[in-house]
Amino acid sequence: MKIVLIGAGNVATHLGRALVEVGEEIVQVFSRSILKAGQLAEALNAPSYTNSMEGLNPNADLYLVAVHDSAIGEVAAGLGKNGIWKKLVAHTSGATPMQVFREAAPQLEHIGVFYPLQTFSKIKETDFSEIPICVDAAQKEDLEVLTALAQKISANVYGIDDAQRATLHLAAVFVNNFTNHLFAIGESIVKKGDLPFQILLPLIKETVAKLEAGSPKDMQTGPAVRHDEATISRHLQQLEGQSEVQEIYRLLTQNIMDAKR
Amino acid sequence: MKIVLIGAGNVATHLGRALVEVGEEIVQVFSRSILKAGQLAEALNAPSYTNSMEGLNPNADLYLVAVHDSAIGEVAAGLGKNGIWKKLVAHTSGATPMQVFREAAPQLEHIGVFYPLQTFSKIKETDFSEIPICVDAAQKEDLEVLTALAQKISANVYGIDDAQRATLHLAAVFVNNFTNHLFAIGESIVKKGDLPFQILLPLIKETVAKLEAGSPKDMQTGPAVRHDEATISRHLQQLEGQSEVQEIYRLLTQNIMDAKR
Repeated sequence: MKIVLIGAGNVATHLGRALVEVGEEIVQVFSRSILKAGQLAEALNAPSYTNSMEGLNPNADLYLVAVHDSAIGEVAAGLGKNGIWKKLVAHTSGATPMQVFREAAPQLEHIGVFYPLQTFSKIKETDFSEIPICVDAAQKEDLEVLTALAQKISANVYGIDDAQRATLHLAAVFVNNFTNHLFAIGESIVKKGDLPFQILLPLIKETVAKLEAGSPKDMQTGPAVRHDEATISRHLQQLEGQSEVQEIYRLLTQNIMDAKR
Repeated sequence: MKIVLIGAGNVATHLGRALVEVGEEIVQVFSRSILKAGQLAEALNAPSYTNSMEGLNPNADLYLVAVHDSAIGEVAAGLGKNGIWKKLVAHTSGATPMQVFREAAPQLEHIGVFYPLQTFSKIKETDFSEIPICVDAAQKEDLEVLTALAQKISANVYGIDDAQRATLHLAAVFVNNFTNHLFAIGESIVKKGDLPFQILLPLIKETVAKLEAGSPKDMQTGPAVRHDEATISRHLQQLEGQSEVQEIYRLLTQNIMDAKR
């Protein structure tokens, strides 16, 4: 497949690499920053790059829109104007309905979504083989194309509609963004005791390893689920002076106690 | 070393196994439940078990108290009465000061702590080799004994005082108990969208894998750290009707925004 990659951030970079690795051809990279477009094009062996919508190659099979959620509409409008409206256009966003294309560029006929459910970072390689890829499309034949493409890079491909994707994106905030923030709170706590964050890593890894064995609601341990009020009040005392973190402790403890098991 | 293991719960079971594996000798298991004492004694090849403090073997080198925090004082009092006051007695609790022994049984001369910083479950084996073991003792020679014993089962042994251990225990609640609860919330969210929890596992694993590359506070991603108000209000709308979870979302989002980076 000939693919134009629109965007040069983390998602575009990691997804572009995965697609090239399975033999797909990135024919062009677009980024508002011509420098970034050029760098990513070079990394992906793409023969062309541009920072202007007018300069987009109109002869690709797929236009993959991997830009910030807020910029997808603008990109769609540009594609719609551009003679590319007969081509398949898919965005990679978890938070954005497929309808964003209809609203911004009603003339687009072939629209879809290609959402890898993963967190990407500049400093770390990503192995796509296990990453869930959530695909959707307005037309059946386009869904087949996107599904086949996704299956080339991952064993976990799901047909997911807008509502389900919004649900997944919300869940991802809890299990990824908020979890990472709890790790950051844990780090700040141990640093006050002159201990390194690394001392917590085996515990963190085991917390996740246990998920292979069963549902997290059946795995809950700790003072909250034991209703161990003495430990809870001592912990709240230790957090004296950090009112927001104290409130997080109180609220999560309450919610664990209230959860049906 | 001849060890009497007091307790037959998760910590006693996993720690007992690890000690036997490196050649230590569990000479007796105590549990209030004679059935559990007998089962664990059999599993650990211990020649004796009991459910009475009076029945404790007085000739061991170490009495390892792995019972619920609230029962440590009572066990200590029993040991104090029992002619065992000349022997080394250590508890395995993260939340309990070493002083619990002094208060319950001032006659105990050799007291210490042997706290494995890990979450244990019945359904899963535990590899101790990487688990941080936090040791403490009132007397220097006892600290050396406990340190040497800990080093036989783990590469990560730390001398940790009461204050530091309390700090670690608090941090562990955030990175283990609360994190697991966020996973449970994530599960309940995806189940409402008729999706399996397994779809979130690669994301969860990557969230943790990234910790090897840097500090969690530098890894934060998501709508909160981007101050993406549109996504945040859509997520809060999706949580309509679940006021506690909505409040958790709001508070964690606020705390991520307020965190110094």
